[in-house]
Amino acid sequence: MDFNELVKSLQEFVGVSRKNSIEKVTKTLGEVYNISGEVLLDFGDDASAIDIGNNKVILLAADGIWGQLMSVNPYWAGYCSVLVNVNDIAAMGGKPIAMVNTMSILDDEIYDDLLQGIVDGCKKFNVPMVGGHLHPDSEFNSLDVAIVGIAHKDSLITSAGANVGDKVLVAIDTDGRQHPQFALNWDTTYEKDEKLVQDQIKVMQEIAEAHLPTAGKDISNPGTLGTLEMLLEASGVGACVNLESIPRNPDVPWDEWLRAYPGAAFVLTAKEENCQEIIDKLSSYSFDVAVVGDIIKEKKLYLEYGDEKAVLFSQNKNPILKMNE
Amino acid sequence: MDFNELVKSLQEFVGVSRKNSIEKVTKTLGEVYNISGEVLLDFGDDASAIDIGNNKVILLAADGIWGQLMSVNPYWAGYCSVLVNVNDIAAMGGKPIAMVNTMSILDDEIYDDLLQGIVDGCKKFNVPMVGGHLHPDSEFNSLDVAIVGIAHKDSLITSAGANVGDKVLVAIDTDGRQHPQFALNWDTTYEKDEKLVQDQIKVMQEIAEAHLPTAGKDISNPGTLGTLEMLLEASGVGACVNLESIPRNPDVPWDEWLRAYPGAAFVLTAKEENCQEIIDKLSSYSFDVAVVGDIIKEKKLYLEYGDEKAVLFSQNKNPILKMNE
Repeated sequence: MDFNELVKSLQEFVGVSRKNSIEKVTKTLGEVYNISGEVLLDFGDDASAIDIGNNKVILLAADGIWGQLMSVNPYWAGYCSVLVNVNDIAAMGGKPIAMVNTMSILDDEIYDDLLQGIVDGCKKFNVPMVGGHLHPDSEFNSLDVAIVGIAHKDSLITSAGANVGDKVLVAIDTDGRQHPQFALNWDTTYEKDEKLVQDQIKVMQEIAEAHLPTAGKDISNPGTLGTLEMLLEASGVGACVNLESIPRNPDVPWDEWLRAYPGAAFVLTAKEENCQEIIDKLSSYSFDVAVVGDIIKEKKLYLEYGDEKAVLFSQNKNPILKMNE
Repeated sequence: MDFNELVKSLQEFVGVSRKNSIEKVTKTLGEVYNISGEVLLDFGDDASAIDIGNNKVILLAADGIWGQLMSVNPYWAGYCSVLVNVNDIAAMGGKPIAMVNTMSILDDEIYDDLLQGIVDGCKKFNVPMVGGHLHPDSEFNSLDVAIVGIAHKDSLITSAGANVGDKVLVAIDTDGRQHPQFALNWDTTYEKDEKLVQDQIKVMQEIAEAHLPTAGKDISNPGTLGTLEMLLEASGVGACVNLESIPRNPDVPWDEWLRAYPGAAFVLTAKEENCQEIIDKLSSYSFDVAVVGDIIKEKKLYLEYGDEKAVLFSQNKNPILKMNE
């Protein structure tokens, strides 16, 4: 493996997904983000948290499914629309409650598959799809899903809680397969028993309620280290990570592994004394968990490999979210 | 006014919006509608209600904005995306908590207007837009919004609670204007003081918590009588309504009035002894409220006008939701 090539590949992968448009949205909508005075977190978390009193918060998130995924494999698009939303709630230490969707349908032939994928996703995660809106005579195919969850206010896992001196942990279910049509889709749920899949969501609530992590995020489109960088930016810290400590399925090369969207995977930070308990709890549910590095003050994400060391992201030079500019 | 022509116009208006595709969605997703055992209501309400214990329910709804509205007036599309969602929660007697959106953007030039419309809608109703998902390089424009609210389990207003012998009430803010570009958009909020607009949402919580209505629904795309028919179908009853009792702004002809999507308007049912209190409470906030008819056993919606009487909808012949087939 050429370490420098890997670093370049990861930088460019996340760089491509950076969109200036997102800045415009967050800037404009930021004006009304907390207009009611009940919103707890800032933009940039996996879900928003709204205080409803009695130490309870409502979590709310939305995800759109990539149009091309719908065309190539509508069943898998429907299934993944559930998975990505459930993981957003799990990452916050919350219980997923229900989803709604909006569908625009151009090709009637993809319709049955799309719906069946949604149904099978709901069954796998035991979260209902309770309604939505249909544009039946659309000129395009699109599927957007929103999810609501519930959590305890005092035990929320957020992106912004990492502190200098904390350890960085990566938890990935390494028992899976690259999806035959989408190599970057590390599927760990489809062929797995639904009880175990649901327990992987529940154990996140358990470590949250035991106040074990200081921060956390589910590994999504930006891959393992891109997701970590987003967490670092939200927390206003940096990290130094050892590449070879990151749990990996040895059948998948590093470059694909680190860019993959896994079915069940989280980056977490925690005080050193809590790491073993996190590892023990998550390991019981098919997660491969390891301490992979340290949180540092300098706002850079360093990646180490043997004697080599590179700056993967620098919040002054190539941040992902640009939230600190 | 030709009464028979009006009846035909209303039947065809709602008829056109009926989509067989919706049947497929409700049938397929119905399988996982209450997979978690916590979902209280059936499909067909303005929002879904999920039991979270302690007499609290989470309300969840989603609405997509019509693509053409986005092209003609993106600002208004953004504003309305907030309005329609807030009304879904108000109709259930709930408090709107927060929204998320998914935007697909083709034309960059509509973008600023769309976002500003959303911001102004959030300010008007004091409900935050807390996040979402952006497809920036889309081949089309679309805006989907989901909303979450909270309500008391024992005082939820649903579509399914109307009983034979109840009175039918229509509450519409008649102080408004036909939108200059969209005649069927009866705008009552844009030029109105935000305190009053927010009070119109809150008074629905008040009548819900006083257990005054037996059922209710916000008047939306199917218009006043189409919305009532949806309520009747969900409740498994019929109604007999007197046309001229329906509150109306005299500047708008009946045919346009009954097909309009009003900014603040509800159909309600209630026991006769509770009607005056509903009228009194809603009238304090710019609603024009009247008892317009009776709930009957026969599953038909009769419309009376002077000596004339017609069957507007029959659940056996031309239902809107087809839920009872």
